[in-house]
Amino acid sequence: MYDCAVIGTGAAGVSAALTLKALNVDFIWFGSRKLSKKIRSAEQIDNYPGLTEVSGAEMGEAFLRQIDRAGIKITEHTVNGVYPAKDSYTLLCGDDVYEAKTVLLATGVETVKPIPGETEFLGRGVSYCAVCDGALYRGKTIAVVCTQKELEHEIEFLASLAQKVYLVALYRDTAVNSENIEAVRGMPLEIRGKERAEELVFRGGVLKVDGVFMLKSSAPPSVLLSGLKTEGVHIAVDRTMRTNLKGVFAAGDCTGKPYQYAKAAGEGNVAAHSVYAYLKQ
Amino acid sequence: MYDCAVIGTGAAGVSAALTLKALNVDFIWFGSRKLSKKIRSAEQIDNYPGLTEVSGAEMGEAFLRQIDRAGIKITEHTVNGVYPAKDSYTLLCGDDVYEAKTVLLATGVETVKPIPGETEFLGRGVSYCAVCDGALYRGKTIAVVCTQKELEHEIEFLASLAQKVYLVALYRDTAVNSENIEAVRGMPLEIRGKERAEELVFRGGVLKVDGVFMLKSSAPPSVLLSGLKTEGVHIAVDRTMRTNLKGVFAAGDCTGKPYQYAKAAGEGNVAAHSVYAYLKQ
Repeated sequence: MYDCAVIGTGAAGVSAALTLKALNVDFIWFGSRKLSKKIRSAEQIDNYPGLTEVSGAEMGEAFLRQIDRAGIKITEHTVNGVYPAKDSYTLLCGDDVYEAKTVLLATGVETVKPIPGETEFLGRGVSYCAVCDGALYRGKTIAVVCTQKELEHEIEFLASLAQKVYLVALYRDTAVNSENIEAVRGMPLEIRGKERAEELVFRGGVLKVDGVFMLKSSAPPSVLLSGLKTEGVHIAVDRTMRTNLKGVFAAGDCTGKPYQYAKAAGEGNVAAHSVYAYLKQ
Repeated sequence: MYDCAVIGTGAAGVSAALTLKALNVDFIWFGSRKLSKKIRSAEQIDNYPGLTEVSGAEMGEAFLRQIDRAGIKITEHTVNGVYPAKDSYTLLCGDDVYEAKTVLLATGVETVKPIPGETEFLGRGVSYCAVCDGALYRGKTIAVVCTQKELEHEIEFLASLAQKVYLVALYRDTAVNSENIEAVRGMPLEIRGKERAEELVFRGGVLKVDGVFMLKSSAPPSVLLSGLKTEGVHIAVDRTMRTNLKGVFAAGDCTGKPYQYAKAAGEGNVAAHSVYAYLKQ
């Protein structure tokens, strides 16, 4: 049982981890050592205090150097779901299970909006998690909408189970090789069906499917953690970065605009202090 | 008429200035090129993302390098009062007057608490501003409570006007030289009087005076700007760093705990974006 589980390795997660470490809190930190895509891909950052005219890559290196120096470890797992237990939370990462007294969400914001039908059919033919739900589609026909090249390994996992996979990739240069994967060009427009998802409509046609996987860098927060109060795509928080759920805190882009590194780092710091105060109670 | 006046050169002020510059807002920035005393005096900072194990002095140098590189100027004046005008604010700095459409308070927090009588007799024998009120005590006897060596020039200014100055310095190594200054040892305890302040009680005795000057790094926010809503010693703000006054925003330690560099920098960033949104309306 950890005192805290931090989800996300953007500026908010980095700041939270550094401060939890300084406060001597026993935490586990989920994310990628590549940090966030947003950090990696920034061309030049002028207004982050202390780093003069850095590229995103340079900022990322500075963060990693500091994390390593502080002896902080990143657990490179994707968290697929967070479930409340008695005075704690259970985190599912594929087949692995973790427990923590508090959760600090620094998951960033998914700028790709849900398409019509996506939210409606979630859990009824629509899934965000290949590892969680892949087995349900053994021998069946599925469509996979993939937003990021980094998630391609999940497509291959699905192809090892399903009979047929239609791949709608929202990036260039797909590199998945499997005889049962058929690439489909054109933006996904809608998921249709009666009781369950039955069709993925895309620009150029309609695919008859048994299920649709939407692979995104992060699931919407209210899908990740049921009952979490949101305002649009953002997690509702107060000035101490508390959410509506006891022991759950949030920081960074996932809590709202401005989407800025300094804002995210500041909120990560505040959230870490609030976790500490909560644990001391 | 500036679009914005930023008061304070701690981490919040630095962050606000960098972001206002990036947003192309025409602003004036009041404070010291020495930045904040808190930054200068920090021994080691481990949890500010991007700067690994820096001293406060090193962080200050990084900030100054960045400010200079961005072509941002610090106006080294103390702001003594902010007064509302029609759709703008007037800022008094000694004899100088500035006008701005918005005000961003990044004044830090004064950890020295008011002594009994200080708030009660403010404007009736108690003053926070040597330049504003010194002339009222020409030829008279005053006590000066000084919290910081950096403010000693104000004591000398007062000594050039008053007949007699009792100096209660809350730091070591005072270096004021004037025949009419008498150093008094012992903490100040209370200001007493009937209609006006008449006595300063300190550990060791009672001084009969015509007035008491409390020289602090920053006046309490509600003294600086009348009508500003506070919660204890902190300025009340919402998540966008708005105060209760139209066009007035606040960021950093002055808005509450945790007193942390990352939190201050984050709030400065958010406040700058809120100023920008307000001006665009």
